Amino acid sequence: MLTSVDRACLHHRRQQLADWVEDPVLLWSGTSVSRNFAANRFPFRASSHFLYFAGMPLQNAVIGLAAGQLTLFWDEPSPESTVWHGPSLSRRDVAEQMGADDHLPLSAVPTWTLAVATLPAPTADSLQQQTEWLGRSVSGSGSGHPQEWDRHMERDHQLAQAIIRLRLQQDDFALTQLQQAAQITVEAHLQGMRSTLNHASEAALRAEIESVMMAHQCPTAYTSIVTVQGEILHNDIYPHTFAPGDLLLVDAGAETPLGWAADVTRTWPVSGHFSATQRDLYDIVLAAHDACIAQIAPGVEFRDVHLLAAQTIASGLVDVGILRGQPEDLVERDAHALFFPHGIGHLLGLDVHDMEDLGDGAGYEPGRQRCDRMGLRYLRLDRPLCSQMLVTIEPGFYQIPALLHNPDLRQQYRDCVNWDRLAQFEDVRGIRIEDDVLVTSEGSQVLTSALPTQADDVMACVNSTSLKE
Amino acid sequence: MLTSVDRACLHHRRQQLADWVEDPVLLWSGTSVSRNFAANRFPFRASSHFLYFAGMPLQNAVIGLAAGQLTLFWDEPSPESTVWHGPSLSRRDVAEQMGADDHLPLSAVPTWTLAVATLPAPTADSLQQQTEWLGRSVSGSGSGHPQEWDRHMERDHQLAQAIIRLRLQQDDFALTQLQQAAQITVEAHLQGMRSTLNHASEAALRAEIESVMMAHQCPTAYTSIVTVQGEILHNDIYPHTFAPGDLLLVDAGAETPLGWAADVTRTWPVSGHFSATQRDLYDIVLAAHDACIAQIAPGVEFRDVHLLAAQTIASGLVDVGILRGQPEDLVERDAHALFFPHGIGHLLGLDVHDMEDLGDGAGYEPGRQRCDRMGLRYLRLDRPLCSQMLVTIEPGFYQIPALLHNPDLRQQYRDCVNWDRLAQFEDVRGIRIEDDVLVTSEGSQVLTSALPTQADDVMACVNSTSLKE
Repeated sequence: MLTSVDRACLHHRRQQLADWVEDPVLLWSGTSVSRNFAANRFPFRASSHFLYFAGMPLQNAVIGLAAGQLTLFWDEPSPESTVWHGPSLSRRDVAEQMGADDHLPLSAVPTWTLAVATLPAPTADSLQQQTEWLGRSVSGSGSGHPQEWDRHMERDHQLAQAIIRLRLQQDDFALTQLQQAAQITVEAHLQGMRSTLNHASEAALRAEIESVMMAHQCPTAYTSIVTVQGEILHNDIYPHTFAPGDLLLVDAGAETPLGWAADVTRTWPVSGHFSATQRDLYDIVLAAHDACIAQIAPGVEFRDVHLLAAQTIASGLVDVGILRGQPEDLVERDAHALFFPHGIGHLLGLDVHDMEDLGDGAGYEPGRQRCDRMGLRYLRLDRPLCSQMLVTIEPGFYQIPALLHNPDLRQQYRDCVNWDRLAQFEDVRGIRIEDDVLVTSEGSQVLTSALPTQADDVMACVNSTSLKE
Repeated sequence: MLTSVDRACLHHRRQQLADWVEDPVLLWSGTSVSRNFAANRFPFRASSHFLYFAGMPLQNAVIGLAAGQLTLFWDEPSPESTVWHGPSLSRRDVAEQMGADDHLPLSAVPTWTLAVATLPAPTADSLQQQTEWLGRSVSGSGSGHPQEWDRHMERDHQLAQAIIRLRLQQDDFALTQLQQAAQITVEAHLQGMRSTLNHASEAALRAEIESVMMAHQCPTAYTSIVTVQGEILHNDIYPHTFAPGDLLLVDAGAETPLGWAADVTRTWPVSGHFSATQRDLYDIVLAAHDACIAQIAPGVEFRDVHLLAAQTIASGLVDVGILRGQPEDLVERDAHALFFPHGIGHLLGLDVHDMEDLGDGAGYEPGRQRCDRMGLRYLRLDRPLCSQMLVTIEPGFYQIPALLHNPDLRQQYRDCVNWDRLAQFEDVRGIRIEDDVLVTSEGSQVLTSALPTQADDVMACVNSTSLKE
């Protein structure tokens, strides 16, 4: 399953970690989680930190990392289990595949627990095991006040910082995986566009899109959004049939079997044709998308990319008469956030919000913290970009009743918004255009560039449907 | 969402419970479970006991049942949440939909915790909340020795027994849901059969089958088995491409949005044609399937249905020369279990193994317990059947290396098996035929009867493919 390049990358990751962390490290993979009874479980998803150093998912395993050496702790399934689950690789074979230097039964973990650094095990069962074996609680990096940290918390914090430093920049193994996730995701969205005219509902189109990922043995990296109510940002239900004039917002990404994610959004008309009002706003979002990607390069502050999106959207909304005033002033006052309330993007890697299990530790440069301004508080990434960092760029325009009908906000922005003009755009509920962008030494590379973004190209794709008899 | 018939059934369930349980009852719905970080979660699946009395899934809710009255404890989402998740029903509206008599914030649950009966909350988070609020651990019905139970455990046990008694017989609400799950599952299997000649892999065919369920807004009730290695009973990976001569075993079932399951298996040749050897063994499994269904009626012991399957399979294997001896003797010696090691079926309802969260409490008549005979130990249901009980009937034939290459078993059954003859059936790895069968006052009704079982009909269905250009 792993190539020699993959294994070389795994080896290098462990060496790097050893350079930055003195203490031995233990990381838990976790277990599958029960759905409604013990024998009926959700598909297993290994901890991303485990996947990063072990390279492959393995249930109920622990890895030890010390001085660049990998020790696998794992028990082979019982003989009775092979009747039900088929033959398993031996521990020796698994250890060889991941390039482990040693392999031991799980019961040997407690011999390692003195003065180790770790991160919280990912599931309730594994967390309980971890707590028992370490004889201490593991609360994750940097919780509480640093002055109250004990030696264990300092160790764990140091480990988290080292892992963040490593995982911020994608190596060749990661890039191969991320490109695969991007490619399958593009294929799935194309299939969705090309089959829209054959389908009558959100649920049917979601099935069409996810079936492409499933046929590649990829789960979804997150719950797909496939909705004609694009203004509901985290919509995860699919109850609607299509009506003429609907815009469909699809935010769906594949995850490779080794755990690497894509995260892509497109918005298209279910009829195959944008109305004039839809087209106007689509082009504003697209202008922000293109401007942000053009800006991406090593050293650029991601917060400035976000503000560029805000500026481009504000400027476009002034041009079509929805906002009034100078775009700079409008952004200064967060008026753009009435229609674009979220951040321009986030880290992407093993997690769709990469390393978000560590809070803002990965997304925010040490010493920085979330700003409470309406236009900045949902920004998940505030760091200078560096080469090999992978981010999403995902500007949007939404008419969210909870914001636009909020009396306080209407009062606050009464001079900025032309409500009568806005009413003419009622056929636009939500638009988002999202791509996965790798920072390179030259600037950037869009991993998902094979998927059309221009309104004409999107319409051509939807209309290329071969209608079913 | 709920019809007046549904609501009448819900009302009747609560009245029945009140007749059998004196103490007030609290049941937790649970919460969605994190996949790799807090904001990325598996789809929510409410506790089946909650669903049974509340009728609908609702995250982080508790219901109180006392004297036939329903109290809903639930908090409406925060205003900020509506920006991300859209508008929510009010607690009043939700309470009205489920026919609740009262509705209170979640924080009011602790006012109810004196002397209540309960069952373990379904997820780690909700279990912790339950333990704190009740001020005691909740270990589930009947764990430990009855003589060591305290008053709380007795209450919980009495509740579990009452719920089992209720849920064993499907009412009109349940039957409507179960028929819907069965119908969608049949449609999905038909789509799988009819598209097999267009696909080259297990993963692609799984996608085709599950996309039918997804288009109906139904998750899978359990992880689908779609495999050319049918001898791996709980196979949950999809790595193989099809080879001529492969038999494909598909065990897949839909779950309705309100949580009711189907559980169906068919086995078909990927080429559209059974070989003579495959056909011989398929017909033996089918004979067992048909004989068992014909036997089902109120009062019949399910264990006898299982033994009839064993007898039919043993007899068929004698006829084709794989087993030697009298079928009765072979079953007595468990020789059939070399090839049919699992039980003939199980309860089906809200859970695909209904109420298996209560251990064998539902599957086994009080006073009975698992038998350690090889041919009986995996039987999940050992009760006399009664009207409105829904069970699966799923005989099979498998060549499982862990059994057939086990030296002790080969020694034990050396006089029963003609290994040379068996070698001629090497193109059969696993066959299973499974339907969902409702016990009726007249006998039985197969909810999944629209899906072909006869080998000729199955082949005709596979060959009805309209090949893609």
